[in-house]
This record gives sequence, structure tokens and C-alpha cells, in this order.
Amino acid sequence: MSPQEVLSGLDGFTIEVPSWAYGNSGTRFKVFSTPGTPRDPFEKIADAARVHALTGLAPRVSLHIPWDRVEDYGALAAHAEEHGVRIGAINSNLFQDDDYKFGSLTHTDPKVRAKAVEHHLECVDIMAKTGSTDLKLWLPDGTNYAGQASLRARQDRLADSLTQIYAALEPHHRLLVEYKFFEPYFYAMDIPDWGTALLHCQALGDRAQVVLDTGHHAPGTNIEFIVMQLLRAGRLGAFDFNSRYYADDDLIVGSADPFQLFRIMAEIASVGGHLPESGVNFMLDQCHNIEDKIAGQIRSVLNVEQALAKALLVDTDALTSAEEAGDVIGAHDVLMDAFHTDVRGALADRREARGLPRDPMAAYRASGYAAEIAAGRIGGTQAAWT
Amino acid sequence: MSPQEVLSGLDGFTIEVPSWAYGNSGTRFKVFSTPGTPRDPFEKIADAARVHALTGLAPRVSLHIPWDRVEDYGALAAHAEEHGVRIGAINSNLFQDDDYKFGSLTHTDPKVRAKAVEHHLECVDIMAKTGSTDLKLWLPDGTNYAGQASLRARQDRLADSLTQIYAALEPHHRLLVEYKFFEPYFYAMDIPDWGTALLHCQALGDRAQVVLDTGHHAPGTNIEFIVMQLLRAGRLGAFDFNSRYYADDDLIVGSADPFQLFRIMAEIASVGGHLPESGVNFMLDQCHNIEDKIAGQIRSVLNVEQALAKALLVDTDALTSAEEAGDVIGAHDVLMDAFHTDVRGALADRREARGLPRDPMAAYRASGYAAEIAAGRIGGTQAAWT
Amino acid sequence: MSPQEVLSGLDGFTIEVPSWAYGNSGTRFKVFSTPGTPRDPFEKIADAARVHALTGLAPRVSLHIPWDRVEDYGALAAHAEEHGVRIGAINSNLFQDDDYKFGSLTHTDPKVRAKAVEHHLECVDIMAKTGSTDLKLWLPDGTNYAGQASLRARQDRLADSLTQIYAALEPHHRLLVEYKFFEPYFYAMDIPDWGTALLHCQALGDRAQVVLDTGHHAPGTNIEFIVMQLLRAGRLGAFDFNSRYYADDDLIVGSADPFQLFRIMAEIASVGGHLPESGVNFMLDQCHNIEDKIAGQIRSVLNVEQALAKALLVDTDALTSAEEAGDVIGAHDVLMDAFHTDVRGALADRREARGLPRDPMAAYRASGYAAEIAAGRIGGTQAAWT
Amino acid sequence: MSPQEVLSGLDGFTIEVPSWAYGNSGTRFKVFSTPGTPRDPFEKIADAARVHALTGLAPRVSLHIPWDRVEDYGALAAHAEEHGVRIGAINSNLFQDDDYKFGSLTHTDPKVRAKAVEHHLECVDIMAKTGSTDLKLWLPDGTNYAGQASLRARQDRLADSLTQIYAALEPHHRLLVEYKFFEPYFYAMDIPDWGTALLHCQALGDRAQVVLDTGHHAPGTNIEFIVMQLLRAGRLGAFDFNSRYYADDDLIVGSADPFQLFRIMAEIASVGGHLPESGVNFMLDQCHNIEDKIAGQIRSVLNVEQALAKALLVDTDALTSAEEAGDVIGAHDVLMDAFHTDVRGALADRREARGLPRDPMAAYRASGYAAEIAAGRIGGTQAAWT
Repeated sequence: MSPQEVLSGLDGFTIEVPSWAYGNSGTRFKVFSTPGTPRDPFEKIADAARVHALTGLAPRVSLHIPWDRVEDYGALAAHAEEHGVRIGAINSNLFQDDDYKFGSLTHTDPKVRAKAVEHHLECVDIMAKTGSTDLKLWLPDGTNYAGQASLRARQDRLADSLTQIYAALEPHHRLLVEYKFFEPYFYAMDIPDWGTALLHCQALGDRAQVVLDTGHHAPGTNIEFIVMQLLRAGRLGAFDFNSRYYADDDLIVGSADPFQLFRIMAEIASVGGHLPESGVNFMLDQCHNIEDKIAGQIRSVLNVEQALAKALLVDTDALTSAEEAGDVIGAHDVLMDAFHTDVRGALADRREARGLPRDPMAAYRASGYAAEIAAGRIGGTQAAWT
Repeated sequence: MSPQEVLSGLDGFTIEVPSWAYGNSGTRFKVFSTPGTPRDPFEKIADAARVHALTGLAPRVSLHIPWDRVEDYGALAAHAEEHGVRIGAINSNLFQDDDYKFGSLTHTDPKVRAKAVEHHLECVDIMAKTGSTDLKLWLPDGTNYAGQASLRARQDRLADSLTQIYAALEPHHRLLVEYKFFEPYFYAMDIPDWGTALLHCQALGDRAQVVLDTGHHAPGTNIEFIVMQLLRAGRLGAFDFNSRYYADDDLIVGSADPFQLFRIMAEIASVGGHLPESGVNFMLDQCHNIEDKIAGQIRSVLNVEQALAKALLVDTDALTSAEEAGDVIGAHDVLMDAFHTDVRGALADRREARGLPRDPMAAYRASGYAAEIAAGRIGGTQAAWT
Repeated sequence: MSPQEVLSGLDGFTIEVPSWAYGNSGTRFKVFSTPGTPRDPFEKIADAARVHALTGLAPRVSLHIPWDRVEDYGALAAHAEEHGVRIGAINSNLFQDDDYKFGSLTHTDPKVRAKAVEHHLECVDIMAKTGSTDLKLWLPDGTNYAGQASLRARQDRLADSLTQIYAALEPHHRLLVEYKFFEPYFYAMDIPDWGTALLHCQALGDRAQVVLDTGHHAPGTNIEFIVMQLLRAGRLGAFDFNSRYYADDDLIVGSADPFQLFRIMAEIASVGGHLPESGVNFMLDQCHNIEDKIAGQIRSVLNVEQALAKALLVDTDALTSAEEAGDVIGAHDVLMDAFHTDVRGALADRREARGLPRDPMAAYRASGYAAEIAAGRIGGTQAAWT
Repeated sequence: MSPQEVLSGLDGFTIEVPSWAYGNSGTRFKVFSTPGTPRDPFEKIADAARVHALTGLAPRVSLHIPWDRVEDYGALAAHAEEHGVRIGAINSNLFQDDDYKFGSLTHTDPKVRAKAVEHHLECVDIMAKTGSTDLKLWLPDGTNYAGQASLRARQDRLADSLTQIYAALEPHHRLLVEYKFFEPYFYAMDIPDWGTALLHCQALGDRAQVVLDTGHHAPGTNIEFIVMQLLRAGRLGAFDFNSRYYADDDLIVGSADPFQLFRIMAEIASVGGHLPESGVNFMLDQCHNIEDKIAGQIRSVLNVEQALAKALLVDTDALTSAEEAGDVIGAHDVLMDAFHTDVRGALADRREARGLPRDPMAAYRASGYAAEIAAGRIGGTQAAWT
């Protein structure tokens, strides 16, 4: 196949961007503010649409409730459509209410659990109003001290809460369950690993799927192995892409270990997981603490595209032959050949052919959009990640 | 309850010791030899029996095939019985054959897979001859380089191989499947985590259970959480106990993080997992590279007993009350009260009441057994871990 | 020696508590508020004094500037003295100013560096006014992306800035330099490890010393080794005690790995580092995100005391003999004997003999202080960690 | 500058290969044997020379004593010269003698320490006979259990032993001191980190320098930071290059995280550390457990060359400008532009121009050398890593 033919494998591949990436974010130590930061969900969607306009890769925007609560969700969806994008997954929030100090869906108090379940019914309602089909649930519940709570009783209460949420979904909805190794709790998270997420999804039904956030694993974890395993089990619902060196650093995807991102995309591509019919939702979940947010999002979607393009170049026949021959270095070299290939020119050509800027980063810088929003978005409260 | 009543919870609790702990072991850099090291399975069992005689805690010995191959397994079982112990789990070996360089149950070559399956039929046969009911399988298969092999095809081949092994079991047999984070391969292990082990066990049937080796996890992993989850799923078949600071260090259990061992046993005790009817097999898997091996095993079983004794002291009503009241420090303190209690005197009293030495370590030192075997086991080849 | 004689080694041992532990803290996801939280430095000192009154262990309070800025530092010092405590180390803050987004003492812009240096001159001034002799500097500077900055140029600028600060100290002052593995930056911290802190201290002079925060290391790091090495080099200035399972979790010291805390204190005690003349300042640096703050501080100082008490029980002659005999388990058992000893009764006796409550936790609960401050501290703004 | 001009920065850059890479290696579980494995140091050097002949990059071979002991070192050096290479660093061995079970240079027994020091005098003698100028010392000493030994006394004994070794060096010799996080001991290594290695080098003198093995760090450690710091302190003596995912995996350098290798080489290149006059010795230290050893070495030196070539492409002016402008993504993108550039063609051109094969891997495969040595090296004992 020619490179062009290979890159046609990118057709139909899309990435979903999160509304919260356009607001301010930070660490527990400091949230720096930035000129031009959106002040409401409409402005966030306008920024997200700019990413799509320049890259052609990001036609959907995830919302986060309550951060993106509006009076009229129909108007928000229409606003998105006018800007050339649409609403993606609806993310619930179980970490910002004082009631959730000791848990939400896992809390000992049935009233708190009911409140947390109820919040998801609101999200399902917003799904109906915005056309979203994915309800994404990251459970931030956990404990800080051994003995603080019964790990097992919390699982039982969680299972019960999830059953209620799952029951509220419409038949074309999915429940996407995310796991996280640690933070915001430091002794035990209630869904710390893919095994736990999978067990809950198995108990719920086929439309419960696992979300793999690339920053939510222990040091050294082989993430592409988990990708393979969840695909094999038919339970990989979505990615939350980002980069990490240490913990859940939430850096630009592909910035810390581009080879890992390539390996993940190669695992995906090897079974057609990048094709729209696979049902895998490729989402970003990042924090642009110190860098320009829109440029950060453009860089991120380009990095994912680049990794997938390289993955599509892998000569799988040669790989299989080398494996069967026990040619360890030969097989590894087949993979590395794809990784070391510079696909940036071919991707620029492809963009141009589709009426997009060859260099979206340069086009963004040249567009004056940053200056425009910095000047225009004076007053109001800057949206923040938290 | 009085302390004595509490410690009656130890009645019936047993630990299984591995035959290979009595042979020499080491790192890839060096295996140091030791006077008195057993030269055959009969001598290993004699040493293991000494651990049981002094502690009353270790009535079973795991065998490892082919390291413990003998002409007459009936004779070996009888030898064990004469020494007051019996044969425990049969451990297969998939890592020491040149054919397994690129995999055993996962190999691309069906002949290699057949050989690896066949090896387990031998193990099942040994189970029949020795009265063992647990077949323990640690899959050392893996790859060192990305691209070296198809992670997914290896899972499919593994599933097929495991199905054949499981089919060979008798109805009262269990298959215990162990997972390991890394080593002896360094890119991807084929069963790296409890989720993967669980998926294979689910596919096989109820008598396929997971083995949790306390040294086989990523840094920071909350092991008692996995214990809880596997118990909740009805799939915790056995432990391989040992200690680690870094990797799979295989140190004496309880020597590196006694509080972690206590938390694990507290999770076990909270649902009666320490009772014989739970079916959880508490095994050791350690390497005494530089220390006396028999003393190392005595120390290990005493450490597990001590941790369980402390776990039995936990005031679970107070824990639950504190949790329900949101009293974080109060709940934690309930757990710590049990941990900080010095149970050594009570355990010595209990030993004395059962006709055992108050201090098994001192009794072992005073017994002259070490000098006796050092003098008697001259000539032959010292058994080694590998 | 009798236990009482052994525990007389605790005489003169003190722990310094941080003013910020009494304010609210949290993660980047949420800071929960708490009834009774202090609203100014005077109330923080009142709370800290309560910890000392109940334990007799915590006669000093660290301040943090600007969080603890007041009009009249003399009045604050007098307030402390009235409450039975005094002012300890002055902590500077280099992470909360918008100017510091890309660095403070390391910034490319000399004006920003000058501002950051200037801030320390204010701290030195506060030292003069409060009687403090320790200036503690945690450098939060770092970068999130490879290429973002020249790692080396930042070291050079840091060295220059530190030289200016050191020059401003009075002869009886020390500069305590803290290192941290990661956070709030995720690619490279500018002082990530003890080696870097040491190099800067060596360049500055004898009164520049290293601060070891127990939560600021890579997974698996042997902290007592670093304690030993810094003591051997004459550069261990202070501890920031806390506990961690994963990252810089800032949990109650001794709650996650009490054996590690014991090993650290044993290393300290083996060279008399716990004696006042050693110059090591034993400080806490913790966040009580979800637990009662004053109770959390009491528990923390008691945990450190307990660990030191056990460390003092170690039979060092037996240790040395066992080492020289190559008796690995024997030597380890000497250490474990001390660790497994329950010293709580002896410590309660000692407290009673000194006119302190036998059980400071119970005494605090019984005192009504929590209810008193919850009722009395209405209105105003709760102090927060950030 | 044109790419050719940029790549002229590679002139004079060399990599040193280890004799032991050509022998068999493995894990503690298994050492697989391989056809054609050298049976003596002469055959190892012949294999190493083949790597240099095909790549032009590897003109020196490190020896390991006692593995490479020969009757006549002059003959060995002449043999090397005939094959177009020369002898590089002499590596001592402190881990394979039964006397070293509890330590070598740190042992409590002065006789054992004397023996370990004496071994280095032999190495110095071999240096004289082979023309080597670097004595490389990896201290494998450590302990497995807390309490097993006095960490501090071991440092003192180590310092004394190192002083004796250093005193035996000739004026043009260097002592290269390597550190390692863990293995073969699992509680504490006696030189676990760069800070400890540095302190010993400082005590010894200017010709004592630190060796950075890329596999010898805690998870998450920023290695290029340490490179920078050691260069800044004038103490970076050498690299031991390899790759890791988990522990000291000793995989082919550049195979696990090529971006990390690039960052390291970029840090090197930014201060001219790749130039011969810098004195940094770029060595490999790897284990080819399952792959072809000579091909593995060729791949390794090519990977280092490729990483350096990309590093030389970095536009440092643009980097500095972006940093000064606070343009985080812009600066990062400058670095990534170099990394994403495919330099393989330019490097092939450069090789061709120097009379070397364009594709050394293919040339090696086509050469028939593997078949030749497999056929010729029958009988004798295969050399092994240990």
C-alpha cells in the first residue's frame, strides 16, 4: 500500500475534546489564570470548535456537569452545531460536594448515595437534550487511612448505586466506568484498577464499558496490554488520553512518552479499534496548567493522529513472520520502523487535501484568535477545572 | 472476648511451605551455597517437617515439578506423613526448558504448547499419587520487546492451553492461576495482573482460582484491596506470601512491611477467610538467599500467625461505628490499636498449651538440627531454587 | 537498662508543628471546610498550643509566609509564649504568585528572581522579630514539558539566588533547603533529590542544611539510608514528617508504614540525632483533608514519639554482634523485637509522671475544645493550606 | 546549518561495548544458551570488533575481571588491535565470590575487605597491560533485611576501601563509581543513588567520577536531570546504557523509551558532552537474554547514534527564545521537531560516505557471520554473563 492508502485508515477517526480543558486548571498549590479563558459553556464550545476547525479531528465536546450546567441544553447543542461540533459524553461529578467527603455512591448514608444517583439522572436527562449517548462516570471515592472504612461494604454499596444508574439509561446509551490508581484519596480508591471496573461492568450489562485514562495506573504498568485485554473482553468503551511522568500529571498526550502512545495506537489499530464502528471513544482529559489551552488541545489531537498514522504503517505480516521465526530483534525493528518514520509531511498533505491548514499550530497562532478572546473575554468569572 | 478466646480464631489456621525454600536460591548474579542444604525432595520434606514440629502451623509442603521429581511419589507422600506433614499444592514449571524461550502455553508453535500442557498432565498424575488437590500454575511467559509478539494472539493461545489443563483435573482438584507484574520478561508478562488471571479463571470454571503473590504487583499497589475483591468475586484460591521493597524480592514475609501483612490478614479475617472452610490456601513463596533457610521459614510462619492474631483483635463493631460517624482518626485508631498490641506473649502461651515450644526460633537454634544436617549432608548436589 | 531508663532518652526530644496543619487543606479536586477552623495565625497558634499542652512534645510552631503575615510579629510571638509555645521555622512561599508560573528563584527574568529573593529577606526579618533561627525553603520550581527550559541554566540561576538569600542570614540562622521528587511540576523539579539539595548546601556554607520530607521520594526509596547519609555528611537539618502510599500524600506520619517510621527513628537514635544538641529539627508537614485537624496533629506527634521510643529499645550491642556473626535473621530479629514491643503503656506512665494526660487523644476528645472552637469561630474566612 | 553539517557533530563520537554482552545471560530463572556464543575473551573481542566494523561506532571493548582473565593481556590487547578495536574500561567483580555474601568493600571482616581491594590492584595491573585508563567499580554490596547491618558503618568501611583503591591508580587513570537502586540486595544497596556515589568521589579526588547506568534508578526518575547535574558538578565519568520498563531490565538501549534516550543525549549535546574531550565514556551494559547478541549490540549502538543525531538537530536558539517568552508549547515543539525527524536516511548516507554499510543490521544478517560462529564454536564452555 502507498502511504496515502495507509493513511486513509485515518478516515472517520475522531477525538473528543473535554470542555474543561479550556478553563483554568492547576495543582493543589496554585491555579494560574489566563487571558481569554472562557466564562461559560458556550465560550468553551467555541474554543473547542476552533480546534476542530483547524484539525478536522475533534468534532465532539464532552460536557461536565455541574460545571457546564446551562438553562437551555437545546440551545447549547444548537450552539455547538452552529460551530461545527456536537456534544459528546456527559461527565458526572462526584467530588465537589461537601456531602461526598467520605464517599458518594459508596457512602454509608443512603441519603448521600441517593443524591449521587440522582445527579446521574440529571445527566441522563442532559443526554436526551443534547443528543449525547455516553454517560461517563469517574468515581473519586476512596479512603485515606487503613481502617477508615470497610473496603468490601463500599463495593457492595457501589454495585447497588451503579445498578440504579444503569437502569436509568436509555437503550442506546452507554455507561462508561473509569478507574484510577490514586487521588483524590491516598489509601484506597474504590475503583482503583481495570479489574474492578470490569467486574462492575460485567455485573451491570453489555452497555457498561470501561474507560482507560492513560494517567491512572501504577508506575511501570503496560497500558497497551490492558487495551488489548479490554478489547478482547469487549469492554473498552473509551480513552481519557493524557501524559504522565509520575502520577496523574494530566499533561499533553504524547508529550512524555510518544513511543507508549504509539504502542497503544498500534494495539488499537491491530484490531480495527480506531474505526468508528468499534465504539471506542477516543477522548482527551488533560490540564493545561501553564501552557496555552487551545494550542495545547491542538497539539494533543495532532499527537494522537500522528501516533495512529505511524501505527497504521506497521507491517503486520512482517511482524507475524518475525514472531513465528523467533526473530526478536527483527520483529521489534518492524515496529520501530513505523515509529521512526516521519509522517508529519504526509499528514500535512492529507490535511491540505481536505481543505485544512497544513500546520494547524501555525494556523492557530496566525489566526489572532488568542488575542481576540483575550480582549473580548473581560469580566465575568473564568471557568476553572475545579 | 478475652484474648484467649480471640486467639482461638487461630485454631485450624495453617500455612503451606514450599519445598524449594529449603534449597539454595539467589539472584541472577550469584547463588550462595549453604551447609546442610537438602539434596533431594526427601530431605526438603524433612526440613519442612521440622518447621511444623516447632510451630504447629505448617502441616503441608508444596512440591515443584520437575525439581521434586522422584521415582515413587507414594513413598514421598508416606515419608511426609511419617514426618507429620503432607503434600500440598503441585507447582508446575514453565520456565526452565530451552523450548520455552519465547513462551510455553502461549508459544506460536503448537508442539511447544502441547509439551507445556503435557507437563501439567504429569502434575495431575502426581496429585493423584500424593493426595494433592491444588495444581498451581505460574505462567512465566512474556516478551522483552514491543513488537516481539502479538499480545492478543498469546492470550488466545493461553486460553486454549488452560482449557486443556483444566479439563484434565479431577472433580476435587483446583487450578490455581498466579499473576506477576514482571520478570522473567520485561516488556509484557502474559498474566501480569489479577484482572487477567480472573478473566481466564472465569472462562475456565468455578474450580479455577487466582493466586495472589504478595511480591507480584506494581509499586504502591494496595494488595488488601485485591484480596477483598477476589474474595468478593469468590476467586481467591491462595496466597504466595513473601516481602518486597522493590520488585519480586522474595524476602521473609512480614519483614519489609509488617503493617501491610496485618492489613491483608485483617481483610481476610473480616470475612472468615482464615478459616479452613474458606478454601484459601496460605502458602509461602520465598528465597532465603543469604539467611538460614529453616530459620527463615520458621520466622515466616510465625510472622503470618502474628499478623493474623493481631487481625483477630480488631474491634470490628468499633470500626463500623467510627466509619458510620465519619470519625476517620477514630476508625484508624481502632485498627492501629490491634496492630500495636504485642501478641507475642499470648502466642507463646498458646503454643505452650498445645505442647509446642514457647519460642520456636530459640528451640530451633537449641535443637542442633542445623549442625546435624550440615554434618550429615555431605556429598551429592545441593538442591537449588532453579 | 530498665524501660524507664531507656525512655529517658526521650527527654528533650521535641517536634515542631506547622501552623498550616490547622487550616483547611485538600487536593486539586476539593478542599472541604471544617467547623472551628482558625481564621488567623493567632487562632492557629492557639490550636497548636493545645497539641503541646496535651502531649508535652510540640513546643514550637512553624510559620508560613505570607499565610501567617501579621501586623505585629512581636505580638504573635508573645501570644505563642502565653500559650506555652514559641515560633519555630519560618517557611517561605514561592508557589502562589502569578509571577512564579515559570519559576521563582530560577526564573529567566531577573526581576522575578529578585522578587523571590526579596521575599526571603522579609522572612529573615520575621525571624528576627519572632526569635526563629531556621529559614525553610521549599523550591516548588520546575517544568512540565521536556524542552520547556534549560535544566542547567535554571540550576545556575538558582545557585545565584540562594547565595543572595544565604548572605542575608544572621550568623545564628540556618537555611534549610528541601527537595521534592515531583509536584507541582511534572517533568522536572529544580531540586528533585537530596543530591541536588546537598550540592547547593555545599556551595553555600555550613549553615545550609537539607530538609528531608518523608513524602518527597520516588517509590521504593530507602529513606533511612538518606537519613544516614545526610547525618554522615553533617547536612541533615530537619525533617518534614508525613506518610504516603503513592505520591506526596501528606497523611498522618506513621499511619501508612509505621515500620518505616521506626527504621528512620532507629537510624536517628543510633547516632544520637534525636538529642537537642544534634540540631535536627523534627517537623511535621501534613494535610488533614478529611480528618479532625487537632486530633490529627496529636496522633502525629504521638506516633513519632512511639517510633522513637521503640527505636531507643533496640539492643545495639546484640545488633552489632549478630552482624559480625553474619546472623542475618538474628540481627533482623533484634530490630523487630524493639518494633513489636508495645510501648504505649510505658509512654502513658511517663506522661502521667510529667503531669500530662495518659491518653492525649481521649483527653482532647473529652476537653470540649472542638465544640468550643466550632461554636466560637463563626464568621471570618477559614484559614486554608493554600 | 545543513543536516550534513549538523551530523558532523557525530565525528569522534564513540560507544564502548562490553565483552559480556556477547556471552549468554539471563534471569535468576533461566539462562538460555545460544549457538555461536564465544568461549573465551578472544572470541568475545572478535564479536565486538564485528560490531565496530559494521557501524564505525564502537572502537573499544570493556573487559570484566575475572570473566575475561587471560594468561597474556598483551596478547589480548594485540588481538583487539588486529581486529580494529582496543581495550576500554576494566570492570571489577565483587559479587561472585562466596566471601562476599555479606559484603565486599563494606564487609565487617577486614580480610574480606582486603581481598576485595586486592582484586582492584589486579585490575589496575591489567589496565597497565592493556592500555586501559578507566577502572569501573560497581559495588553490589547491600543488605536484605532492616537491622542486618549498620548502614553507616558500611559507608565508613567503604570509604576506607575506596581510598586504598584510588591510591593504587596511576595519574592517568580514572576510578568510575557506579550506583544502583536495588539488586542483588533488596533492603539497602550501599551505593544506591548518585548522591552517594558523588559523596565518595568528592572524598577521593578529581579522578573519581560517577557512572550513570540508565537502568539503576527508581521508577519515574528524571535521568537527564541527573546527567545535567553530574556534568555541572564535573563528575559524569561514564554511562552504562540500556533500557528498562521495570527494574534493571538490561534491554537494548532505546528500545523501551526512545524519547528518554533522546532527552539524555540532548542534555549531553547541549554542553558538548558527546565530544571526545569531554571525557564522558559512553558504554553499553546490556543482557541479550533471548535475542541475537551481536545484532543486539549493533542495534544498540545505532540507537545511541540515532538519538545523538536527533539531539544535534535541536534548534537551541529557538529553544532559548521560547523559554524566555514563556512559550511552553513552542519550546517543547522545538525539541519534538528534532525528535520526530527521521534521521535514518542521513545516517545511512553518512555511513556510506565513510565506507561503511548503509544498513549495518542488514549487512550483518547478510554477512553469514552468525552461521559461521555457530558452526565454528563447537565444544568448550559458552561464556556467560555470570
